[in-house]
Parts: sequence; C-alpha cells; structure tokens
Amino acid sequence: MNLLEKYLTTRKLTENICQPLQTEDYVVQPIEDVSPPKWHLGHTTWFFETFILQANFNLYKDFDPNYNYVFNSYYETVGARVIRTDRGNLSRPTVMDVYKYRAYVDEAMVKFLACEPSEEVSNLLQLGINHEQQHQELLWYDIKYILGHNPLFPAYADENIESELKINVLNNEFSCIKAGVYEIGYNGDDFCFDNELGRHKVYINDFEISNSLVTNKDYLTFIEANGYQNFKYWHAEAWDWVNKQQIKAPLYWHLENGEWFRYGLSGLKPINLDEPVCHLSFYEAAAFASFMGMRLPTEFEWEVAASNFEWGKLWEWTESAYLPYPGFEKAPGAIGEYNGKFMVNQKVLRGASLATSPAHGRPTYRNFFHPHLRWMYSGLRLVK
Amino acid sequence: MNLLEKYLTTRKLTENICQPLQTEDYVVQPIEDVSPPKWHLGHTTWFFETFILQANFNLYKDFDPNYNYVFNSYYETVGARVIRTDRGNLSRPTVMDVYKYRAYVDEAMVKFLACEPSEEVSNLLQLGINHEQQHQELLWYDIKYILGHNPLFPAYADENIESELKINVLNNEFSCIKAGVYEIGYNGDDFCFDNELGRHKVYINDFEISNSLVTNKDYLTFIEANGYQNFKYWHAEAWDWVNKQQIKAPLYWHLENGEWFRYGLSGLKPINLDEPVCHLSFYEAAAFASFMGMRLPTEFEWEVAASNFEWGKLWEWTESAYLPYPGFEKAPGAIGEYNGKFMVNQKVLRGASLATSPAHGRPTYRNFFHPHLRWMYSGLRLVK
Amino acid sequence: MNLLEKYLTTRKLTENICQPLQTEDYVVQPIEDVSPPKWHLGHTTWFFETFILQANFNLYKDFDPNYNYVFNSYYETVGARVIRTDRGNLSRPTVMDVYKYRAYVDEAMVKFLACEPSEEVSNLLQLGINHEQQHQELLWYDIKYILGHNPLFPAYADENIESELKINVLNNEFSCIKAGVYEIGYNGDDFCFDNELGRHKVYINDFEISNSLVTNKDYLTFIEANGYQNFKYWHAEAWDWVNKQQIKAPLYWHLENGEWFRYGLSGLKPINLDEPVCHLSFYEAAAFASFMGMRLPTEFEWEVAASNFEWGKLWEWTESAYLPYPGFEKAPGAIGEYNGKFMVNQKVLRGASLATSPAHGRPTYRNFFHPHLRWMYSGLRLVK
Amino acid sequence: MNLLEKYLTTRKLTENICQPLQTEDYVVQPIEDVSPPKWHLGHTTWFFETFILQANFNLYKDFDPNYNYVFNSYYETVGARVIRTDRGNLSRPTVMDVYKYRAYVDEAMVKFLACEPSEEVSNLLQLGINHEQQHQELLWYDIKYILGHNPLFPAYADENIESELKINVLNNEFSCIKAGVYEIGYNGDDFCFDNELGRHKVYINDFEISNSLVTNKDYLTFIEANGYQNFKYWHAEAWDWVNKQQIKAPLYWHLENGEWFRYGLSGLKPINLDEPVCHLSFYEAAAFASFMGMRLPTEFEWEVAASNFEWGKLWEWTESAYLPYPGFEKAPGAIGEYNGKFMVNQKVLRGASLATSPAHGRPTYRNFFHPHLRWMYSGLRLVK
Repeated sequence: MNLLEKYLTTRKLTENICQPLQTEDYVVQPIEDVSPPKWHLGHTTWFFETFILQANFNLYKDFDPNYNYVFNSYYETVGARVIRTDRGNLSRPTVMDVYKYRAYVDEAMVKFLACEPSEEVSNLLQLGINHEQQHQELLWYDIKYILGHNPLFPAYADENIESELKINVLNNEFSCIKAGVYEIGYNGDDFCFDNELGRHKVYINDFEISNSLVTNKDYLTFIEANGYQNFKYWHAEAWDWVNKQQIKAPLYWHLENGEWFRYGLSGLKPINLDEPVCHLSFYEAAAFASFMGMRLPTEFEWEVAASNFEWGKLWEWTESAYLPYPGFEKAPGAIGEYNGKFMVNQKVLRGASLATSPAHGRPTYRNFFHPHLRWMYSGLRLVK
Repeated sequence: MNLLEKYLTTRKLTENICQPLQTEDYVVQPIEDVSPPKWHLGHTTWFFETFILQANFNLYKDFDPNYNYVFNSYYETVGARVIRTDRGNLSRPTVMDVYKYRAYVDEAMVKFLACEPSEEVSNLLQLGINHEQQHQELLWYDIKYILGHNPLFPAYADENIESELKINVLNNEFSCIKAGVYEIGYNGDDFCFDNELGRHKVYINDFEISNSLVTNKDYLTFIEANGYQNFKYWHAEAWDWVNKQQIKAPLYWHLENGEWFRYGLSGLKPINLDEPVCHLSFYEAAAFASFMGMRLPTEFEWEVAASNFEWGKLWEWTESAYLPYPGFEKAPGAIGEYNGKFMVNQKVLRGASLATSPAHGRPTYRNFFHPHLRWMYSGLRLVK
Repeated sequence: MNLLEKYLTTRKLTENICQPLQTEDYVVQPIEDVSPPKWHLGHTTWFFETFILQANFNLYKDFDPNYNYVFNSYYETVGARVIRTDRGNLSRPTVMDVYKYRAYVDEAMVKFLACEPSEEVSNLLQLGINHEQQHQELLWYDIKYILGHNPLFPAYADENIESELKINVLNNEFSCIKAGVYEIGYNGDDFCFDNELGRHKVYINDFEISNSLVTNKDYLTFIEANGYQNFKYWHAEAWDWVNKQQIKAPLYWHLENGEWFRYGLSGLKPINLDEPVCHLSFYEAAAFASFMGMRLPTEFEWEVAASNFEWGKLWEWTESAYLPYPGFEKAPGAIGEYNGKFMVNQKVLRGASLATSPAHGRPTYRNFFHPHLRWMYSGLRLVK
Repeated sequence: MNLLEKYLTTRKLTENICQPLQTEDYVVQPIEDVSPPKWHLGHTTWFFETFILQANFNLYKDFDPNYNYVFNSYYETVGARVIRTDRGNLSRPTVMDVYKYRAYVDEAMVKFLACEPSEEVSNLLQLGINHEQQHQELLWYDIKYILGHNPLFPAYADENIESELKINVLNNEFSCIKAGVYEIGYNGDDFCFDNELGRHKVYINDFEISNSLVTNKDYLTFIEANGYQNFKYWHAEAWDWVNKQQIKAPLYWHLENGEWFRYGLSGLKPINLDEPVCHLSFYEAAAFASFMGMRLPTEFEWEVAASNFEWGKLWEWTESAYLPYPGFEKAPGAIGEYNGKFMVNQKVLRGASLATSPAHGRPTYRNFFHPHLRWMYSGLRLVK
C-alpha cells in the first residue's frame, strides 16, 4: 500500500468508527481527559493541514483560519489553542462542518500527493497517519466513556464488538527469562515513534512472567478480600486517590443487587469471569500485584519476554516510568513536541489493545498514561 | 384565550425560539449557570408530565421513566436528579428524542384537557405555563451565552432582533416621589407567583428616580475613568470578583484595536452608545451608581414609581435583597419549592426584558439573581 | 470617663482577654474567618497608629514601617496588606514584639492626648475604641475556635465563664406588637456606627415575638426529628452547605456514645438543655424556624419589640439582609470603608452577646455575618 | 560510638538546630509540604515511643495517649493521624510540652537501653536515628521556608552558615565514563535504607558528566535568555506549573531594582554568582539542561561517576524516577511503609546537602521528591 492509499484508508477508518454516533455524541466532554469525537475528527485533519499543506503546498487555501485556534491540541509552537477543558463547550463548528473540513483537506492532499513528495514530507505524512491512528484509539476510549457515563447506558452497537476479549487463559503458566544484557528499542526500517529509537543495551535479572493476563475472576478475589479498603497494598498517593474518588472497582463496573455488571460497547452486561480484567489504573494494577505477592514487569522485561505469550488485546501496565532512552533527541520544530515533553510522571504500558491500529502492533511500542487513568483498555500481567 | 390554547401557544413559542439552532447548540453547557437548550425543552415538559399527567391522568403512561432522573431540576421532593454541572455531559436523549417527548406529552395534555380540569389542576397548569415562559427567557440567555462564547461568534439571526433596545433616552430626567405609606405586591385576579403575594404596606421616603436607563455612553465614562480599577466604588466581595475574574467591561464587550464591540444575537458589532447598557452584574450596577454619586432604587421604590417611566426592555437591578413578603407561605408539596428556597443571598430585579414573555410584564413581578451574575438582560436606573 | 481613660481601659481589656493564652495560641489560623489573636492585638494598634498618630502627631515615629503591611486588614486606601488566609503563616513579629508595639503606641497616645484633641480626632478616637471593642468580641470567637478545634480540647479557664448563658426561660410566651409606622435607627448623642444612622420610618405589620431564646432542648427536637436530613426546612444553598460540610449539629457539639457534649471555654461538657442554643448559622436558624412553623424576626421587628424581652446574651439572627438605611452615606477616606462595603450577601444579627463590650449594647446596633457562619455567639428567637 | 551515644547525640542535634527559633516559629505551616518545627520534634519522638518503648519496654507508660493522634505522620498501621494540612492549626501541645515529651522519652530510652537490646530492637533504633536525621534535614528546609516567606525576612543566624556553598568551580570539566555493566546499590555492612538494597547490575552507555555543579552565573544566562518564557525547554506539565505559579526564578530569589537577591539563613543578600544554583525544582533543572543542549544524569550514571567529583553540598536532581530496585521487598508491619509506598511520580536526587547528616553521606543514598518541589537544597550537574 503506498502512502496515499494508507492516508485514505486511515482517514476513512476514523469516520467509520464514528458512524454509529448521534450528532449529539460528537459534542460532549464529560471529563478533561475525554475529548469530543468532533474534536478528534478536526484535530487529526488540522495536523495534515498545518504541517503538510500549509507548509508545502503553495496552492492551498485554509478552509477556515479560525480552525487553527479550535483544533490545535498542545503544539505551543503553532499558536493559541482552546484549553482542553473548554473543548466540550464548543457547539460550532458543527459536526457537518467538520466533515466538510475533512473532505476539503483530503481533496487537497490527493492533489498535493499527485507529485511524489520529498522524503521530509513523506516522513511527516507517515507521522500524520500514525498520529491519526493514535486518535482512532482515543476515539474508542472517549466514545465508550461518553456513552458509558450516560444514565441511559446507550449501546454503541448491538453486537459485542469487544467479544474478542475472551482470550484463552493458559492456567497462569509462567515463562522463565534468564539474566543478561538485552537490546531494547526499535531496529527495523518501517515507521516508529521517536520514543522507541535509540536501541540500547539493558541488563535484566532472572524473572518469571505470566503467559496470561489477569482475569475478572482473579480480580474479584481482590475486591472480595477488601483489597480496596486495605492501605497496605497501595502506594501512598494511590490510597489518597482510592479514598477521595471512592474507588471500589474497575471503571465501568456496577454492583446491582449483589451482582457485578460492566458497561461495554454493546450495553450493560453481567461480568464475564474469564475475560481479562480491563479499565484499571496503574494504582489498581500495582495494588493487585502486591496483593498477589508479585509485581508488574518493567517495560524492558516485557519487551524481552513478549515473544513467549500472546499479547495485543489490552495494554499492559508496567512498573517503568516513561523516560527518554539513552540518546533520545527531540526533532526540531513543532514535531519535536510529539513525545518528549510528556516524559515525566507517567507510566509505560506495553502491548496493544483491541482498539489499537494493527499498524501499531510492535513489541517496542511505548504507550504512556498517568498512573490514575483507566478509561483506556488497560490490563495487567504478573511477574515473580 | 383558554388554558389549552395558552398551553399550546406557549409550547410552540419555546420551540420557535430554538428553531435557528444547530443540533450541537442544544447540547453544551459552557458554565454551570447556563443549561443546554435541550435540557430546557425536556425540563419544561417533565413539569407537565410529573405534576399534571402522572398525578391526575389515569390513562397516562410515562414516555420514558429515566427522564425523571435527567430532567428534574431542583425538586428534591420528586427524586434523584442530574446535578447541574453534569447537564452538559449528556449526549442522550438526543434532540430528536426530546422533541418526540414534547409531542407525546402535548398529545396527552390535549386529551386530558378535553374534560374541564379541576381548579387545582387549572392552577397547576397556569403555573406550568408560567414556568415554561420563565424558561423561554432563560433559553434566550443561554443561547446567547453559548453562541457568544464560541470563538467563531456565530449569529443567531441575521436581523438585529435585539434592536428594540434602542429606546428613547429622555435626557435623564428624574421623577420625584413623595414620602408615605404605599401598598406593595400583587392584588389582581390573574396569575402571579407566590413571591408577589401578601400585598402589604411599606413606608417610603422622598426620592427621585431617573426616567431613563443608564446608556452605554454613560457607562463608558465609568470605564474610561478607570472605575474597574478603583476599589472605592465597589463592595468588598465585588472587588474580589473584579480582580479574580479580571472583569473590565460588561459581559459580551470586546476591545479590539481601541474600539469597543459587543456580541449580540446578530453577531459581533460595534457598541451603540445610545443603547441602554446591558449584561451587568449587581456589583457593576452598584459600583456605577456609586461612581455617579447616586444609588439603585429599592424594589419598593421601583414598584411605586413604575408608572412614571417606560420599562420592559431590560431587567433593572435593585438594592433590595430577595426576601419573603410579610405573610409569605410556601405551598405544600413540590410546588412549594418554587420560590421560597431561593430567598437568601440574591438580589431583586424589577421590570422585564425584551426576552420576557409579555404575560410576565407586571410591575409587581420579582425576578432575582445572585449579585455576580450578568448573562441575563440586566441594566440599571439611578435614584438620588 | 474621659476619652483617654476609655482608651486605656479598652486597651487593657484586650490584653486581659488574651492573658490565659499560651504563646502558641496567638499564632494559628485554623480557618480563614478566624484570625490569630496576635493579629488582633496588632491590627487594633495599627488603627490608632495610622489614623491618629501618623495623621495628626508630628512627633510620632513609626514603630516599624513593615507593620502596616502585616496588620492592615481591609483598608484598601492604606496600601498593601497580608491576604487574610496568610495571617496564620506569620511567625514574626513575635507575640512579645506585638505587646511592645502596643505599649509603644499607647505611650505615644498618652502624650498626644495630653492636649485636647480636635473634634475630628475625638471622633476618630471614639471609632478606634469601638473598633477595638469589636475586635475584643472577635478575639473571644477566635480563641474559642482555636482551642475548641484542637484534639486536646484545652480549656481557656477552669471556671465556666460562659455560665451566664443559663438565663431564665419564660415558657416561651410571646409579645404582641401592633401594626403601624415605627422609627428605626439611632437617635442618641453618643457614639454609634455609620450603619445605624439615618433614623427613618418603617411600616410594620402585626406580629408576635417570643420572649425567650430557643433552647438546646428545643433544638434537640429538631435534630432528633432528622431536621438536618430533610431538605424541606432548608434554603437551597443551605441544603448544599449541610450536605457538602456534613453538618449535623451546632458548632462545638459532639455526639459521644449517644450523649451530646459541647466544647465551651472551660472544656468539653455535657449539653445543658436549659441553655439557649448557640453557635448556629443563619441557615440552621431559618431551618429550625421553618420546622416550628414560625419564622425569624426582621431587624425592624426586633428593634421595635426589644423593650419587651431580655436580650444581650447571644446575637440573634434576623431575616433581614444587611443593607444601607435610607440616606446612608460613606464617610470620606479610609474610614468610609468601615461598614458600607460589606452591604451585600450578609444577614443582620441584633442584640449583643456575653462577649460583647457593654458599650455596644444598644437596641439599634447592627451586627452582620454571612449566613453560613457560626463561630460567633449566635442564637435565635421566633416570630409568628 | 555505641547506639545509645548515637541516639543521644542525634537527639541533641535536633534541638540544637531549633535553638535560635522563637516559640512562634515552631508553630506555623505556610504550605502543605512544610511542617511546623514543633511537629518534627514531636514526630521523631513518637517514632521511638511507638516502635521501641511501647512495643518492647514493659515498664513504659505513655507520656500522653493523645500524642499518637497528633504526631503520627503517615503510618496507616498505627491509627488515626492529623491530616498534613492541619498540622499548622495546632497551638497545643505547646513547644514546652513537646520538649518535655522529648525529655521523658529520652529518659525512658536511657533506662531501656541499660540492658543490651535484641538485634531487632537495635535495627529499629538504627532506623529511628536515621529517621530523626532525615527530619533534621527537613527541619532546615522548613525553618528556612518559614523565615524566608515572612515579610520581615528575619535571619536565622547572623553568620552565613550556608557559606560553604561557595565551593570550588572547576571550569566545568567533564569526566568520561565508559560503557559497561556496573553494580548499583549498597553493599556495605552499616546501616542503609531498604530502598538502597538489592545490589544489582545495570548496563550504562558511554557518557560525560560535569565535575562541577551549575552556578548562579550559569543559571542567570537562562533567566536572561527568557528561558522561563519559552515553552520549548519545558516538559508539558512543567510549562503548566511555570505559568500557573508564575515562576520566574529559583525559590528565594527576589528581583529588586534590577538586582537579584536571595534569602538565606543569614537574611536577604545579593546573589553570589559563583555559588552553585540552589532551590530548583526538577522541572527547572531539566529545562536548564535542555537550554544547554545537555541532560541530567540518571541515578545509575551518577552513582558510577561519583568518585570523580566532589559532592555533598547540594542534592542533585537525576532523570531517574524513584522505583524499586530488582528484588526490593517491603519490611513487614509499619516499618514497611517507610519507603516503598512513595515509589510513584517522584524523582531521585543523589548526593547530599550541607543540611544532611554526615551519617547519610554515601554514594548509594536515594533521596526523592516530587518534580515541582524546590524548598530543599537542590541543584544540578550536567551530562552530555
């Protein structure tokens, strides 16, 4: 698939994800971390308009100069932006206008890419496509949050599109990895993010890592042993979080008449005990590991062991903080803001989820979130 | 016009006010005080469903039992409700669903009112109609706020539907009122709110009241004399508000290249100096009066003097706190929550505005808002 | 007693109130409304230094020019000030230094007053004395709060200096007052505050007012009838306050093993049922009145009826908002900030308390607090 | 020195640090991170009382059972505690009482240690002594903060006890370290904290590390190049912090008439350009490194290189997140809460400061703070 095909396929997929939504669902922002779907549609388009068309295509005229203000996210280099908590207050541009904006930019991109782009533009296009794929994943998270926090619990789809979570559970067998110096980081020729680069050596001690993700059944033992009420399993600031936010179960879990339900994209359904537990914060993942007398893997252990087990259904919390690899360098200009500026106070997750673009399914991929967040498809695997 | 006709006319008008909106405009809640238009449409309908149909019409079946949870506002008697700051997070029910809800309830009301209602039900129906008329006015405020705080400054309508604000200015002449005991409160036979009842005597001193509202021109002298930077005109908590919120002009005013603009329903336009100044808080109204060496009228002075001047374009701040009249009594049940529970920390406004239902245009009408609010059509008149 | 004697007596009394304190008790500020006793000692001194000595006494040299910054409270005219919530962060000047500051200013005042002061200075001196007397009362409130919110519950004194609260309860008999026009406001020749001036006519309806304050016994019936859990007795914002602050009883009440105790200046003691109930907010006073099917008096009713009953043990909440009397005028300069700037969002209390200077015990005195506050000696009397 | 001597020396030193304080200085808590000196005196005593005397000495009687409630810090195992932000509201127990408490416990400790303690008790005693030494360092930070944020800028001492900060600057020469596998962690026989244990291998790449700390002169170039106004040097959340907190210079720096001063323990003095820059947050340290085109060392790089340069005047920020070493295990019981529960969202600092107990001056010591904090003696060293 050439780059233009990749571009068009990606753009189409984003719209397909939104297809079942009502206009109203595109607009709301129930919490700061969740962006309105309309914003994702516009922001990913703004990326191509700003970094490719405006910068490289003389014939290009802006769709609307105000859109830079509305759809810039965190690129300080490129001017003022709507602060994140305000995104849900914007009824305009309308959903229809945003789709027109997408079509307008796509048409210009097709014209522009009729001539072979320079290598620099190709790289930017690659980045823009990967950027939009990342927002596709965020769209899933945010749509689920918006529908799952509505008192009417509307379904996104009738069929259970999350059903593939019922993966094989392998009796919790562990793989043993031997101590030694291993190479970490991306070393292929395809696209990867800057934070994966700088392949380098890491010394790793002997460890054993579970071949299965922790299941709802496993996690219920923690809930039923009053794990959420016992400080000894929790980090100090996790314990504050549990108490201030009154956390008692994973996100989307609801206890009704003594039975546990969870909201999924097909609606509110009873918990399936054999599914891997999902929508946990790092705080909860670490507390559960402590309860089990085990721990989470580091991101290096995970990468070294990844060929031993199936992965890709849920992002897996690691113990590792999100830090630069040796030799990490920011790209110059706005693109340089992509990853490096987030390298403090966040935790690495490894693997991929059912909402992840297959193009991102590589064992060196470094996802990252603050340790209290859990609206993404996050689970865990134990190490001893 | 009989009650059923009044009902249907009122219901239709509410929908007409919303007619120019895009679906997205119905959904957002940019600040706590502003409700999504969708919510107003649903809440006014819920009032008739709950207090008339459910309570009195055996044949009535709920449109959707979850709607009580979504559209109850502050009636603690009638069950759980969506807290006010969450209204803007709800994408469902959709706008279309809410219009269906309205049609469903209207149809049931027509059937129910085919038989002559009891006096009690007639009174409730009167209250429901007046309640919806109050929400029509709030709809104007909230629509203006939603559009006027969007970075694209979309117009609600091309023509200047606020143009009637250009009222005659009468050279600031003052009417003199003589001291004495006056009767205050409603004493007609038509509908009025409980807070207007208990007609009672009040002793009033000699005073002079302006026949004109304060204009933009007048108010600019205050701005240009650095009134917003001089504590001596302000109440202590007003001064905190000015500084914390960085207030420098009335709401919707924007200074661009040294010229003042204001957002109105037809878009962003230069200030018209001859219009009465609008969208002021009580704090600003009182500071301006202090700057002029005058004061605001009490609500009793205003009521006594009202026959001397034109009123009805803008609500007029008074010095009076919103308190019960002698002999005020709460109605029993949920209806009793209508007015009395707000009688602390709010200020009375008298008159009416261009957004007010003509049915509410009586000189005994008591409107009330917290002293820092200014998204309603509020102006002022001076007394010396 | 001449003015100098009054001055010296007042100054001495302030220090006597603090005499039982430990150095540490002078320093802390557990909530924003409570000021450290050290600050009261300095601030009252600063008032005389700034408005009398610096302004009128050529020979006077500042004790320390930084003290204006530390001890100014809210006089915007007179320069920067330590914001209120920061007062409890200041360990310096030390308590000893503040006492030296007092002695220094007192000595200068004695010298300055050796010559007969002008009438203007006499008036300022009167105001300064009354100002310090007001702070004496605040000292009692703040000391009680500081000691009463310490987990060790230290006593201020062994003997029960609040014992005089055990006043005669007169079987709740009511005085009947006839409707008519009454004169309200101060009309004597002695000192009064600017907010009492402008004696004016008020029309009052027939009413009956209790000769007794509400007692702990009365108030317990409200608690035991779950009054704190029933929204119908409460204003809307009172109900928010009760729920957010988890209010379940008057301030200083503690339920231990089913028995009610209250912290008093002599320590934690069982509730005395015959005492008038104390340390209520306006919200609670109004809710209790609603529970009893009665109401609070207006400040005008209270003033008219005051000769019919004993008062002066507790401040009594009224229904009246704190507003200017007709003809109220601010004095020019910093003194003009004394009262007028607080005339919004506060409620009037009438009477006096056991902590009030006898010099303030006049029936026209207007005390005022925000409706949620209750660390002062506040009670209530019912009207029907 | 035997353990009892160490105990007594340590206890004495704590009191010596406080010796120049006024009683009032012991009481205040200007921000949440700063504890009142009184609290440190009590809390370190409570540690010995709770974990040694109550647990092991039959004859011991509590000094006051309420003190557990007042002086427990974060040991959830051992009962309720005064929440951290409330510490500054407590005027009792008085400073005198806290010194009596110290003397009482010291006397009991002397009696108890007359007999040779078990190994378990010896270990606890070691831990208690090290714990008190850590609080000695916090005392320096907190005293400096309390005095340095007082508008009178009182000096702690006349002589410049921070003068040893004027260390030799070695022309910014760099030491080169060769890549390879290194051993990290404590491997001696003396006391160390649990977080230093688990000596383990780490692979390190080639790097060069400065032999000197960054100086005030160096840092001024960053300020003067508008480094605090240029987002490109900052992490995303650092940039929020700079803007929300209006940060423009290191803590304790004041710009007066174009000249930089800094508050030190001997008062407000002009900046010395040759001193190492101090009182920086991690955010500032990382931004400065980015400005210089360099980076901070990891804690492993620092430990490997430490023999190449002088260290011990200031704690040095590293890039490393505070995480458990391989094989880290929490001790059972309350002691297990010592370090592990903080291993999220904090950064490691290495070295020691002029306020650190010499007993803590080992190259494996891991200090840790949140990245926005800067009231400790923190500086930085660059790596390229």
